[in-house]
Amino acid sequence: MTTFNDIDRKAINTIRCLSADGVAKANSGHPGAPMGLAPLAHVIFNNFLNFNPKNPNWFNRDRFVLSNGHGVMLHYVLLHLFGYDSMKMDDLKQFRQLGSRSPGHPEAETDGIEVTTGPLGQGIANAVGLAIAQANIAATFNKPGFAVSDNFTYSIFGDGCMMEGVASEAMSLAGHLQLGNLISFYDDNHITIDGDINVAFTENVLARLEAYGWHTIWVEDGDNDLEGIAKAIEEAKKVTDKPSCIKITTTIGFGSKLAGTHSVHGAPLKADDIAQLKEQFGLDPTKSFDVEQDVYDLYHAKAAKGASAEESWNDLFSKYSAEYPELATELQRRIKGELPQGWEKHLPTYTPADPAIASRKLSEILIGKVFDALPELIGGSADLTGSNLTRYSKSVDFQPPSTGLGDYSGRYIRYGVREHGMGAIMNGISAYGGFIPYSGTFLNFVSYAAGAVRLSALSEHQVIWVATHDSIGLGEDGPTHQPIETLAHFRALPNMQVWRPADGNETSAAYYKSLTNKHTPSIIALSRQNLPQLEGSSIEKASKGGYTLVEVENAQVIIVATGSEVGIAVDAAKVLAEQNIKANIVSLPDWFTFDQQSEEYKLSVLPDNIPILSVEVMTTNGWQKYSHQQFGINRFGASGPAPEVYKFFEFTPEGIAKRAAATIEFYKGTPVRSPLKTAF
Amino acid sequence: MTTFNDIDRKAINTIRCLSADGVAKANSGHPGAPMGLAPLAHVIFNNFLNFNPKNPNWFNRDRFVLSNGHGVMLHYVLLHLFGYDSMKMDDLKQFRQLGSRSPGHPEAETDGIEVTTGPLGQGIANAVGLAIAQANIAATFNKPGFAVSDNFTYSIFGDGCMMEGVASEAMSLAGHLQLGNLISFYDDNHITIDGDINVAFTENVLARLEAYGWHTIWVEDGDNDLEGIAKAIEEAKKVTDKPSCIKITTTIGFGSKLAGTHSVHGAPLKADDIAQLKEQFGLDPTKSFDVEQDVYDLYHAKAAKGASAEESWNDLFSKYSAEYPELATELQRRIKGELPQGWEKHLPTYTPADPAIASRKLSEILIGKVFDALPELIGGSADLTGSNLTRYSKSVDFQPPSTGLGDYSGRYIRYGVREHGMGAIMNGISAYGGFIPYSGTFLNFVSYAAGAVRLSALSEHQVIWVATHDSIGLGEDGPTHQPIETLAHFRALPNMQVWRPADGNETSAAYYKSLTNKHTPSIIALSRQNLPQLEGSSIEKASKGGYTLVEVENAQVIIVATGSEVGIAVDAAKVLAEQNIKANIVSLPDWFTFDQQSEEYKLSVLPDNIPILSVEVMTTNGWQKYSHQQFGINRFGASGPAPEVYKFFEFTPEGIAKRAAATIEFYKGTPVRSPLKTAF
Repeated sequence: MTTFNDIDRKAINTIRCLSADGVAKANSGHPGAPMGLAPLAHVIFNNFLNFNPKNPNWFNRDRFVLSNGHGVMLHYVLLHLFGYDSMKMDDLKQFRQLGSRSPGHPEAETDGIEVTTGPLGQGIANAVGLAIAQANIAATFNKPGFAVSDNFTYSIFGDGCMMEGVASEAMSLAGHLQLGNLISFYDDNHITIDGDINVAFTENVLARLEAYGWHTIWVEDGDNDLEGIAKAIEEAKKVTDKPSCIKITTTIGFGSKLAGTHSVHGAPLKADDIAQLKEQFGLDPTKSFDVEQDVYDLYHAKAAKGASAEESWNDLFSKYSAEYPELATELQRRIKGELPQGWEKHLPTYTPADPAIASRKLSEILIGKVFDALPELIGGSADLTGSNLTRYSKSVDFQPPSTGLGDYSGRYIRYGVREHGMGAIMNGISAYGGFIPYSGTFLNFVSYAAGAVRLSALSEHQVIWVATHDSIGLGEDGPTHQPIETLAHFRALPNMQVWRPADGNETSAAYYKSLTNKHTPSIIALSRQNLPQLEGSSIEKASKGGYTLVEVENAQVIIVATGSEVGIAVDAAKVLAEQNIKANIVSLPDWFTFDQQSEEYKLSVLPDNIPILSVEVMTTNGWQKYSHQQFGINRFGASGPAPEVYKFFEFTPEGIAKRAAATIEFYKGTPVRSPLKTAF
Repeated sequence: MTTFNDIDRKAINTIRCLSADGVAKANSGHPGAPMGLAPLAHVIFNNFLNFNPKNPNWFNRDRFVLSNGHGVMLHYVLLHLFGYDSMKMDDLKQFRQLGSRSPGHPEAETDGIEVTTGPLGQGIANAVGLAIAQANIAATFNKPGFAVSDNFTYSIFGDGCMMEGVASEAMSLAGHLQLGNLISFYDDNHITIDGDINVAFTENVLARLEAYGWHTIWVEDGDNDLEGIAKAIEEAKKVTDKPSCIKITTTIGFGSKLAGTHSVHGAPLKADDIAQLKEQFGLDPTKSFDVEQDVYDLYHAKAAKGASAEESWNDLFSKYSAEYPELATELQRRIKGELPQGWEKHLPTYTPADPAIASRKLSEILIGKVFDALPELIGGSADLTGSNLTRYSKSVDFQPPSTGLGDYSGRYIRYGVREHGMGAIMNGISAYGGFIPYSGTFLNFVSYAAGAVRLSALSEHQVIWVATHDSIGLGEDGPTHQPIETLAHFRALPNMQVWRPADGNETSAAYYKSLTNKHTPSIIALSRQNLPQLEGSSIEKASKGGYTLVEVENAQVIIVATGSEVGIAVDAAKVLAEQNIKANIVSLPDWFTFDQQSEEYKLSVLPDNIPILSVEVMTTNGWQKYSHQQFGINRFGASGPAPEVYKFFEFTPEGIAKRAAATIEFYKGTPVRSPLKTAF
């Protein structure tokens, strides 16, 4: 049994006071949660969490996720006390200041922070992803006597997370997957921004989690019962076939005059309150940002234990390398995030002689060819496997072995109809290291996961959305399923690749860039309907994000298109040729990648002195960046067979040719500047 | 006790066969759910649902929502059999065809369909909104002896809905709100697109709902036990302080050779399967779309009962009108969706002498002034009331009276941290009629609700998002909370107002248009920081969506901006004036509304022969539609005090002036055409 004494209590109170100091100095932030959660955090970090502050990226470290990210001051204080280089006392003092290492919510770029949180519900879903990743690594690499992976994932979440749907999705899946390596803590503090939690949240959280298949424990006095917390964690660690949730009843802002009220949630404590707090805890009320040496000593001793734990692991890994050299080399490669040499030779290429194939099917073919070559790939679908075509036929499902449906070494996840949870889980898998997660849903329903996709981009997670049924081309399912705004939405997101390949070679390019760009997530938008293999496309050209597909001399207009409309644009050029109008065709499958090319290259594709017409069966918003005139759909779609719907909206060779001719006419006699040229 | 006999079974089998016929003729769609759910649907519609096919909009009708909208053929068949004018036999034959009244998923524009569903999880959340609306109307208008509102809301949902987070959010809130008028049915058919539900969904659904505070019942043989279904509904109707969920275990595609498999979920049955189906059910296998007269008779008799139920209600309402003339007039006004005369006089106006005020605060002031004048307003917040400032100080919370926190006549909903559920619930409240729901969250987190916002726009629900903390101007909370792509996303959505008012008058204009445009939802993006009251703004001018705020003679450049940047642009014009550069300032608070103005008006605001620079602290994507050059932020934001963050990104009078001067320079000597002019 873990025991505690006065130094533990002093350390906890130091965490509380430092948190209050940090928020007060910033005059902005959330002191309540750090003060209430200090005992729990102390027990997790000092008594259980396996980590080495000198190497925050040690692969077998336990992961810790603060899902209620607004309480980040707690985490910064812990990083400081345990001696992380990323969090000096000065960093604590720079909380929420421009350019500091301690921004207002946890961001993964700070060493010691596993995932960016703050948007509620994301962190606990990331934690599910971290746990999935660990289970998969362990099942793949561990050998008798060589538990090279055995870390736990710990996560604290609050009422806010529990109310968010994304958490519901991920936690339900975690229960199904029997993730015994996930131990979470529900901060039951009864307070929400609107006041007492009873105004909006009266469900029985533990009963709900039990319904999801979780193991649950309740520590009634989370403010003081350190032994109870430790006992609960010990129990949770022993439950290997269920994720655990330990409910900790705490007092928000413990020690403050406003303790237990929502006033202490998101506003700094007043000076006199902080003074009485320190007095109450036997600390010096005249000092700010003060840590007594015995507290540092306590935590630094634990940090040293962490360093030696890593050393032991390194020894273990050396022996493992001797015994299982191939596995060891492979794991090291995965940890480094280097792709296997020559993997790209498996990318399929096509010629115009090849048959027309739906790009979702091209994606399936590609996945089949690279899946064995890239063991870091871990796929899935939000219950649309047969439509998204995301599953390699020989892959094994990631499932608890007891289900008989797969095992933990499986690399295909049945996410269920849980798009938002899927996105957040992929972020967690990516954050673990050693994986490139990809998953399918209809393009329109990537929007359900917008909160997670945004964090992929912000946190630079390499995750891939296989987004099929990418337009009105899905036909009969109708406007509820036909994206109009979706590409514009995600193209406006910084650090986001949004591919819409036009044929087989472009599909290979989309995957090539998505698989090699380590710090940028991707959406690959794919058609339901068949697309011809285009003359002039290649992986190399499409890998630039945009290129001239059809070039004629003295062209009068450029038609720039993406995906399923490129082939129609090629046919439109033929219609125009019959009218003696010369048109070049540009394919622009990914704006993000195209924007990264040299100015010279970009201007060679979209030059001065020629009008440019964009063609895409979606909103025209945004296309003005690359074109002078836009042909798109600025209304909702329609339910009907796809060819009829295309005809209805005039996305036919004739419909495009008509607009190209009008574009030429419109600019006749006026100088035309490339839309890429800007004043500043 | 409700009893059933052979004609009921024949009617059920007719529903099954018609559904199979409809999907087969379309060669697209989902026969499995309609065939499995036919018994349940029969009992609901024929034995319980109170409705009048001759007047689908009768206000006190029971509402029915098919949350698993892919099973829509079931609903179309029912509408047909009960004699709705909107669904003739020919309409069934036109299932999923272009321009038909029977699109691939239920769309509210078809009479008899309450809400557009298909995107999973939305329907059951809409149902929660419908139930909230009914409870509020009843608490507001019912009098002893005059239950002018007593309808129930019935909703069927499947595993897919139950996996979606939006459903979790809404169902948790429904439990908290003790909505006894909501009766839902969980179609427990064990099948999901990926196969057996065990691959991804093994939670205990009823235990989870009980944890949310629901009453639950299980009918084990949903294929045959009509009495059991009826008994369960009777029981559920008696539970007045809890929403009910009746789990119905069914066989998907009942009667098909593929019954009970996922093959019958989303693909038409083969001809021989349909033939054996009809034979098995004693129907003529050589006939398609065939309904025997006794089945029509049965359903038409029920339709006649519905018509007389409405007559009785009309009688009741006449008496109510005599006894409570003011309430009756008010309810009739609300049902018609007409705003009270003169309400707009309560909209506040401002002059430049008034102090600088954050637009979230301007919004709060406005809500305070119009809340009593507009009883159809029903507000709320996703647990950010004190930040969104959405609550009128005198309003009562919508809460179960037993909580002591409010009552059902209350017009302020504590949604909890449930943005997506909130959006879908608002859609349901709007669909009920008699309400204009509005709710608050941070602009960045409207993205969590993207799925519901999209359906607001598609279904033309008048709902208002009070989206505060609308930019980097929120400061310290940092990039996780600072929108970059959000406005571009929602501006790209058809039928969507996206307001970003610059001052008090523009805030009033934003609300004026949002409150008077009955068929278009709105997002009103509001600042955390103070904004000056601008010289030259007015409700009238801003109500055009865009207008010239500052006009000088012989201007050399137009700066077009929104929200918090308009005031800075005005100061930039002063900086430019010092350099003898003349600039006009255009404020463009809502693109959607501006686009609806006359060509002449729009060109008067953004004319030819003058370069235009857009300024907004977000992505520049989309701004090319209204400007030649764009100043924005195409990266993620930064955590720090707001003024410092603005300075960092150079959104200062000097930073804008510099770019305006560069814009003039860039276009010197070249003719400039208004960006509004297009070739076709």
